[in-house]
Amino acid sequence: MKTLRIQISLVAILACVLAFIVTGALAADPLPAWNDGKTKQSIVAFVEKVTQPGSPGFVPPAERIAVFDNDGTLWAEQPMYVQALFVFDRIKALAPQHPEWPTQEPFASVLKGDVKAALAGGEKALLEMVMATHAGTTTEEFEQIVKDWLATARHPVTKQPYTEMVYQPMLELLTYLRANGFKTYIVSGGGIEFMRPWAEQVYGIPPEQVIGSSIKTRFELRDGKPVLVRLSEINFIDDKAGKPVGIQQHIGRRPIAAFGNSDGDLQMLQWTTAGSGARFALLIHHTDAAREWAYDRSSSIGKLDLALDAAHAAGWTVVDIKNDWKTIYPD
Amino acid sequence: MKTLRIQISLVAILACVLAFIVTGALAADPLPAWNDGKTKQSIVAFVEKVTQPGSPGFVPPAERIAVFDNDGTLWAEQPMYVQALFVFDRIKALAPQHPEWPTQEPFASVLKGDVKAALAGGEKALLEMVMATHAGTTTEEFEQIVKDWLATARHPVTKQPYTEMVYQPMLELLTYLRANGFKTYIVSGGGIEFMRPWAEQVYGIPPEQVIGSSIKTRFELRDGKPVLVRLSEINFIDDKAGKPVGIQQHIGRRPIAAFGNSDGDLQMLQWTTAGSGARFALLIHHTDAAREWAYDRSSSIGKLDLALDAAHAAGWTVVDIKNDWKTIYPD
Repeated sequence: MKTLRIQISLVAILACVLAFIVTGALAADPLPAWNDGKTKQSIVAFVEKVTQPGSPGFVPPAERIAVFDNDGTLWAEQPMYVQALFVFDRIKALAPQHPEWPTQEPFASVLKGDVKAALAGGEKALLEMVMATHAGTTTEEFEQIVKDWLATARHPVTKQPYTEMVYQPMLELLTYLRANGFKTYIVSGGGIEFMRPWAEQVYGIPPEQVIGSSIKTRFELRDGKPVLVRLSEINFIDDKAGKPVGIQQHIGRRPIAAFGNSDGDLQMLQWTTAGSGARFALLIHHTDAAREWAYDRSSSIGKLDLALDAAHAAGWTVVDIKNDWKTIYPD
Repeated sequence: MKTLRIQISLVAILACVLAFIVTGALAADPLPAWNDGKTKQSIVAFVEKVTQPGSPGFVPPAERIAVFDNDGTLWAEQPMYVQALFVFDRIKALAPQHPEWPTQEPFASVLKGDVKAALAGGEKALLEMVMATHAGTTTEEFEQIVKDWLATARHPVTKQPYTEMVYQPMLELLTYLRANGFKTYIVSGGGIEFMRPWAEQVYGIPPEQVIGSSIKTRFELRDGKPVLVRLSEINFIDDKAGKPVGIQQHIGRRPIAAFGNSDGDLQMLQWTTAGSGARFALLIHHTDAAREWAYDRSSSIGKLDLALDAAHAAGWTVVDIKNDWKTIYPD
C-alpha cells in the first residue's frame, strides 16, 4: 500500500511538472512583435482552427502549405528591390571585362550612377541588365557571387546588411507556422537562385521551398565535370498570374495560407482562398513612414491597389504596419 | 528501502524493455526483399556512412536528398510506358467528341488498336497524341482523370492494376532512406501531373517531391473562380540532360544519392556523383525475363547502354534483378 501511494505521488508530481510545461508553452506569446488586436487574432484563430484534431476546420499536416511573397513581405523592398541593387553593383564589378559598356546604354548610365536613366529603357533595358549579370556562369558560381555580395552590400538608407532588413513579425510568423506543422514556401517575383543562397539561414526556408523567377540552364560536361550553365533566356516569370502557375509546378497542391503585400500577389491569394476548407490570406500594408516606408496605390515598387480592394471585398486580413507591428526589424 | 528497491526494479525492467526494442530494431532487416550480397551491402554501407554522426562521410539530414527515376526504376515500364497506355485509352474515351479522328492519323490507328502504326509518325505523332489527351482541362480535372483511369486500368500482360506493379525492393529502399532522414524525390521523364495523383499513396512521395515533364498552364478566372488551364505547349522535358536541370529548378541543391535504370538517367547520376563528400549512384539492370522482363542495350523502352558502361567505369552499384531481388512486386 505504501509503495503504491508513493508511486501515485510520483505520478502526481510528474503530472504537475507536465501541466506546468504545457501551461508555460500555452502562455508564451508566439508572436511577441505583433501588437494585440484583430490582425494578430485572425492569424492565431486560423492556426488553432486547422490544427485542432476533430475540429471541422482541421487540416492534416501534409496539406498545411503556407506561401510567402518575399520583397515587401519578408524583407524591405524600398527604395528599390534588393535584386535590382545587386544588378547595378554587378554591372560595376563586371565593367572591366566589358570595355563597350561605358558607351552603351543602359550600362553607361549605371556606370555613371544614374539608375533612373538606366531604367528609362523600360523592360528591354532591364532584361539586358539582368541577363548581363545573371547569365554566363555555372549555378555554383552564381550562388557564390550572391553570397559574396550579400556579405558586404549595405542598404542605401539604413546602411544595414540586407539580410538584417527582414521583418521580425514575419520571422516569428514563419516559426509559429512551422511549429504548428506548416511547410513554409517563398513564392516571389525575384530570382529563385538569388534567394536560395541565404533563405535557409535567414528565414529557415530550405532551397527546395523557394519558388521564383528563373532563366534557363543547360547541363554540360566541362573537362568531364558536369555543370549547369546559366543561359540568357527567360525560363519563368513568377509574378501575378505566374504565381499560381509556379505554385502548381513546384508544390502540386494548393496552399491553405498565403501572405503578400502587392498587386503581384493578388492571384496567389485568389488561388489559395478558392480552395475548400479553412483558408487564410493576408496582405501587408506599408503604412509606417517613420519606422519603415509608407506606400501603396501609386508606388512603382510594391504597388498595392487592386489587391487592397480585393482584400477588403473578400475580408482578407490586412496588416497595418504602423499599428500592428511592435517592432520592424530584428534587434 | 523497500520502495527504493521496487523503483530500481522498475527502472531495470524499463531498461530491459528498451534494450529489447533497440536490439530488435537493429536486428530487423530493413530490406527483406533484397538478397544478401554486395548490392544490398553497398546501399546499407552508404546509408550508415552518411548517417553516423562524427564519421567523415556524415551528411546533415537537410542535405540527404535522394532522387529516383520512375519508369523501370520504381514501377514496370514494359511492354510500354504506363503513360503511353493512358494516352491510348484517353484517345478511345475522347473519340466521341472528335468525329474527325477515325480518318486522321495518328488517332485513326489508335482507334483501330494498331499502336505500332500510331507511333510510326514519330515524335510529331506522339506529341499530337499527348497534347490531345493532356491539355485542355484544368489541373484539377486532369488529376481526377488520372485517378479514375488508374482505378480501373489493368496491365496488358499481368492484368494487375499499374499501382501494384511497383517494385517491392524499391518500396523498401524508399522507406529505409526516409527512416534515415532522407528526403526522397521522383525525377522522371514522365508527366509531373500524371504521377502526382498517386505517388504519395503508392510511394509515400508527396506531390512537392515529384519532378517530371510538363506542359504549360495558364491562370484564369472562370465565372470568378480561379483555375489553372493546361495548354498545348511543352513546358519542360525532364529526361537525360534535362534531369539535372529539373533537379536544380525544383530542389536547388545537389542530391547525394540517385537511382535509375536507363540512359535517360545517366546525366542525373553524373550530376549527383560529381558533388563533394559521400555519393551514391545505382542502376537497375532488368535481367529477369521469368519474373519481369529482360532488356538493356537494344530496347526501345528503357534503353540501358551508355549508362551501363558509365556505371562499370565509375563503380556505381548495378542491380541484377534476377540475382539481387528476392521478390519483384508486393504480395
